[in-house]
Amino acid sequence: MTRAGICCTDLEITRGYMGYRGVLGHELLGIVEACDDPQLVGRRVVAEINLGCGHCRACAADLARHCAKRTVLGIVGKDGCHAECVTLPTGNLHVVPDEVTDDRAVFAEPLAAAFEILEQVHVAPDERVLVLGDGKLGLLATMVLSTAGADTTLVGRHPHKLAIAESAGARASTEVPAVAGFDVVVEATGNAAGLATALGAVRPRGTVVLKSTYHGRPAVDTARIVIDEIRVVGSRCGRFGPALRSLASGRIDPKPLVEETYALADGVVAYEHAARKGALKVCLVP
Amino acid sequence: MTRAGICCTDLEITRGYMGYRGVLGHELLGIVEACDDPQLVGRRVVAEINLGCGHCRACAADLARHCAKRTVLGIVGKDGCHAECVTLPTGNLHVVPDEVTDDRAVFAEPLAAAFEILEQVHVAPDERVLVLGDGKLGLLATMVLSTAGADTTLVGRHPHKLAIAESAGARASTEVPAVAGFDVVVEATGNAAGLATALGAVRPRGTVVLKSTYHGRPAVDTARIVIDEIRVVGSRCGRFGPALRSLASGRIDPKPLVEETYALADGVVAYEHAARKGALKVCLVP
Repeated sequence: MTRAGICCTDLEITRGYMGYRGVLGHELLGIVEACDDPQLVGRRVVAEINLGCGHCRACAADLARHCAKRTVLGIVGKDGCHAECVTLPTGNLHVVPDEVTDDRAVFAEPLAAAFEILEQVHVAPDERVLVLGDGKLGLLATMVLSTAGADTTLVGRHPHKLAIAESAGARASTEVPAVAGFDVVVEATGNAAGLATALGAVRPRGTVVLKSTYHGRPAVDTARIVIDEIRVVGSRCGRFGPALRSLASGRIDPKPLVEETYALADGVVAYEHAARKGALKVCLVP
Repeated sequence: MTRAGICCTDLEITRGYMGYRGVLGHELLGIVEACDDPQLVGRRVVAEINLGCGHCRACAADLARHCAKRTVLGIVGKDGCHAECVTLPTGNLHVVPDEVTDDRAVFAEPLAAAFEILEQVHVAPDERVLVLGDGKLGLLATMVLSTAGADTTLVGRHPHKLAIAESAGARASTEVPAVAGFDVVVEATGNAAGLATALGAVRPRGTVVLKSTYHGRPAVDTARIVIDEIRVVGSRCGRFGPALRSLASGRIDPKPLVEETYALADGVVAYEHAARKGALKVCLVP
């Protein structure tokens, strides 16, 4: 392990989410120490976090992230990367282009999750997109959508985060614009009120991309979904190719999201920092 | 007016849905008595129920059904067709082909709503589709999807309705098949438990088509939508062209759905009949 990120999911797991017990962490950058493929030994790699069975229909379609028998690094049945070493199948590894620095490469996993939006939903470059929530994922989604050409507005609460979105070419606001009717709304606030806001801000026949998972089962205005024929699309992990290409070209630069880097030995302090309200990315270095 | 259908929405309105006060009814067949277009006078017509402003972006896109200023026949700000006469814009009228009998033509509106599923979602002919709810809309959706070639299963409670689905070439069952993982699930039960069943029966990355509107705001397992990357698509009114073509060719025959026809003067009795548990289509003739 060279470097690892702390994600909101890690914090949720410490509060009981997924009922997981084991080593935390799924955002990683490392050097391959040993591998069946000698070409990979010594290479700098990032890694996809879903480990499929390799035999089912989902795995055959290169969708291990939807394999019913999958384990997930640091989340389901597989020790994670907040450690000095981690094991992973060779097929999960992606060599990082030399031009991508360590502090950027560690964003490959959450950036892939942001690119997942474009794998699932056709966002035309003329469309108006609203991103709700200026957390790490909301900011990465704003960067991805803005870079794809969409007229993108991020709504958040923290001036320094909104400034990051503006630097990436997006609009930023502390309130949902009065002229709503957005073609696509990405809900990344992490609280159920965000979904209600999203359903109120999307145009008829528009798309709400749901990135947040909430505690419990929120009450949803399903009548609005039916009457306005809204599409609600759940969105989770993505492929690493688009993320690594955008990092290598410099089209997307997540470095402004790095708030602090801690030694792995100070992991508990690092987690406490990451849990602070409004914290950006906290990283660990073994 | 030649003939009108009573829809579940009409029954909901009598219980307070939409806060509408006025003449009920939006499923109609009639003869044009007077019209700016002399070609239409004396013709047998059905009619789209959304009356747009004619000037906005939705109306320009031939989507009056999503015009923010629309009235809706017998539902929002426009007297409906459970009457001897009704007025409608010429643009809302569709001439019924001669080969479609009156008792079939009156299904044009709900059948268009069933075809709306195919306008919104690409259902490939190899896909496995589950329809939840053997009410009128569930049966029409089953007919449409089965006719489109999909491997369609209707889940309902009433043997005589399940038999109608089987006659239309679909499978029918009183329980969700143990091997779930359907590509598309159409929720048409009218109760919120149906949405939970739909989310449990759809495969990862599959589509739930939401036809039902529920009382209040149901609690929804949004985490499942995110983790399994499910698409939930709200679906309402559809275009009449596909409905009329399928009736004219005989590909779809809704006649088995007719339960009883009453004189308009017996409308209250007809509504009471339509409100019986498990009732199929009740029609009115002026």
